[in-house]
Amino acid sequence: MHDNHHLVVVGGGFGGLQLVNDLRGAPVRITLIDKRNHHLFQPLLYQVATTLLATSEIAWPIRNLYRDRPEVTTLLAEVVGVDPANKSVILTSGKAVPYDTLVLATGATHAYFGHDEWAPVAPGLKTLEDATTIRRRVLLAFEQAELEEDPAKRDALLTFTVIGAGPTGVELAGIIAEMAHRTLPGEFRRIDTRQARVVLVEAGPRILPAFTEDLSAYAARELAKLGVEVRTGAAVTDCTDAGVRIGDAFVPSRTLVWAAGVQASPAARWLGIEADRAGRAVVEKDLSAPGLPDVFVIGDTASVMQEEGKPVPGIAPAAKQQGAHVARVIRARLEGKPAPGPFRYRHQGSLATIGKRAAIIDFGRIKLKGALAWWIWGIAHIYFLIGTRSRFAVAWSWLWIYLSGQHSARLITQKETLREEG
Amino acid sequence: MHDNHHLVVVGGGFGGLQLVNDLRGAPVRITLIDKRNHHLFQPLLYQVATTLLATSEIAWPIRNLYRDRPEVTTLLAEVVGVDPANKSVILTSGKAVPYDTLVLATGATHAYFGHDEWAPVAPGLKTLEDATTIRRRVLLAFEQAELEEDPAKRDALLTFTVIGAGPTGVELAGIIAEMAHRTLPGEFRRIDTRQARVVLVEAGPRILPAFTEDLSAYAARELAKLGVEVRTGAAVTDCTDAGVRIGDAFVPSRTLVWAAGVQASPAARWLGIEADRAGRAVVEKDLSAPGLPDVFVIGDTASVMQEEGKPVPGIAPAAKQQGAHVARVIRARLEGKPAPGPFRYRHQGSLATIGKRAAIIDFGRIKLKGALAWWIWGIAHIYFLIGTRSRFAVAWSWLWIYLSGQHSARLITQKETLREEG
Repeated sequence: MHDNHHLVVVGGGFGGLQLVNDLRGAPVRITLIDKRNHHLFQPLLYQVATTLLATSEIAWPIRNLYRDRPEVTTLLAEVVGVDPANKSVILTSGKAVPYDTLVLATGATHAYFGHDEWAPVAPGLKTLEDATTIRRRVLLAFEQAELEEDPAKRDALLTFTVIGAGPTGVELAGIIAEMAHRTLPGEFRRIDTRQARVVLVEAGPRILPAFTEDLSAYAARELAKLGVEVRTGAAVTDCTDAGVRIGDAFVPSRTLVWAAGVQASPAARWLGIEADRAGRAVVEKDLSAPGLPDVFVIGDTASVMQEEGKPVPGIAPAAKQQGAHVARVIRARLEGKPAPGPFRYRHQGSLATIGKRAAIIDFGRIKLKGALAWWIWGIAHIYFLIGTRSRFAVAWSWLWIYLSGQHSARLITQKETLREEG
Repeated sequence: MHDNHHLVVVGGGFGGLQLVNDLRGAPVRITLIDKRNHHLFQPLLYQVATTLLATSEIAWPIRNLYRDRPEVTTLLAEVVGVDPANKSVILTSGKAVPYDTLVLATGATHAYFGHDEWAPVAPGLKTLEDATTIRRRVLLAFEQAELEEDPAKRDALLTFTVIGAGPTGVELAGIIAEMAHRTLPGEFRRIDTRQARVVLVEAGPRILPAFTEDLSAYAARELAKLGVEVRTGAAVTDCTDAGVRIGDAFVPSRTLVWAAGVQASPAARWLGIEADRAGRAVVEKDLSAPGLPDVFVIGDTASVMQEEGKPVPGIAPAAKQQGAHVARVIRARLEGKPAPGPFRYRHQGSLATIGKRAAIIDFGRIKLKGALAWWIWGIAHIYFLIGTRSRFAVAWSWLWIYLSGQHSARLITQKETLREEG
């Protein structure tokens, strides 16, 4: 290995960026390929969907991050396959980009468990477009309710259903309920937005199953205070543009949001290696692909086990730790040093917010809930935001919302602005 | 007239909002109808198109502005006609909204002078969607050039053509040139963005014809310094996705922006009254529609003459003055007082910026150019921004750009993210 060693990184999420950051100064040329021009701070994406933040506050152009690293080339392109025999990745254009070492950090998308026909009526939340779609639908539902004269149709317009009660589902339901009960009253003349229903549906026995039962129960109580109807042990059996079927009961609801499942990107299929049930590539202990020592898979698209047999969770800190680990492996190889040991995940804690005043944090020994947890959550997220300006901008937006109660990003955009009803 | 007098205002632009603002406390119920949920600060729209500002910094939800005015009802709906005999406006749903007094403030859109087939390849700049479309195309052109290996195709990708050299065209051309020459260099590895061409095409003999020849010549020199090729007396004869034909010469250019003409909304047609060549309704001296004393037309969709026979320009201050005038007329009628005199336009000045450091201002007797003009321009625009938060947010964004040189809103969004080439 020498200066002309070419590392190709596919995916500019948390894992891919950590890897590139940690290889600063290493004797390697890097090509970073992403199908988007921006890194997305996904943990705050739900705040774009719920009008708290603007898109540009949580997304940053990837090539701008590496303007001072001439050895890093950023390409806006979509990878559709890997040719391990010829050591190259294939772009949609058919062009092959050769690599000496390859890292796939291509993430995951939402999964509908075999019901892809639900996607148009129950959008998930993975991209900026998803977030603006959900924002548009939520805002338009209130607008259409203001115009609607049929009480049944109006009730369906004022019923919002979030499917899946992990952190994203809980955060979405909490903010939508707060909008309806605290932000929007006074702006409408024909409807009372406080009459809106927010239904949070969870197939499992309790919300936020990654947290302790105590914290989970606290979160459920806080959601109830905000006016969210929490329905656990409730399986969704159908989603249509008129509503959602939960078991045998149909809930008329014009706005559905899907926060229930994830499906890994097809990295395992590209490499022809084993995948787990969610499509994640099963990798070696150093995160390389079995039989392909020059190919690594990290982040949400990799299936990695912790020592106690539990899977590493699909969260930003896990992806970053994996990126950092692979950077160490690559650097050791380039410098002819012994490989570092196997990847070990260190869980730093779990966080979730409920509305704009409460949160729960599980640091292992220390467990926090309430306003203090909410402040820690906020400071941690501002700290981890990429880009100095984004930090200030988000801090400022939150301070504004905190003091004024007014959301700043309540825009309905995109072509299908108006789905007016008679 | 009494408390139940119902005023319908169509359009939440500068004219419509000024009217509603000035009727605070008047004995009138107001219904404000707009097909968007937001008021748009159009004078800064070009900064959204050129990645300087985020969409939510220049747009504000209309109903939020009137949350403290219970007599004002805001409807998100599109008006498709007026029935003056039955005194009602017709929505797309077919629903009729009755009025006692009607004000049409429905604005204008861009016009292609009989060449509507140019619209898809040369988008204009009137809505937030237009701005994000232009932003996406400009950013994608650089991205695609980075991937392109054919030198001729690469040059076409790196050629940006702005058609029309009024203030919007000049502002767009200036910022695109600054991006190429100052913001983006260092971020690309295969192309030199400083090689990009920005061509500003104007059919008339000089740019910014609303200004004096001296200021216009200064602006042309400043644009040349930024690297803009100014072509005056040059008529565009064709626009395609490969480029633009200027007279007989074809300029290969993959990104075109249309800033050349406006077409009024069809208010005159709805009312069955006379329109001028640009489709603007010719109104009476008090801005009412001829033969329809209860209907007023204001802003970009009204054709109004100044005393010296020149038309009132289609700019924000003119629309606001008209809104204020009609508010006085309506208030006088409601209170049974004598009508105010005819509408008189007071021109407060013309402003245009060239890039991020220079501007020209014509206050009539006082004419300014250069950095001082730029600061006055900036302060004036922040002052007129609606919403306290927007003022601070825009001031902060500009300060950030001024100090760091980094633009904050460089996001490529919307579905057709990738038009990758081989």
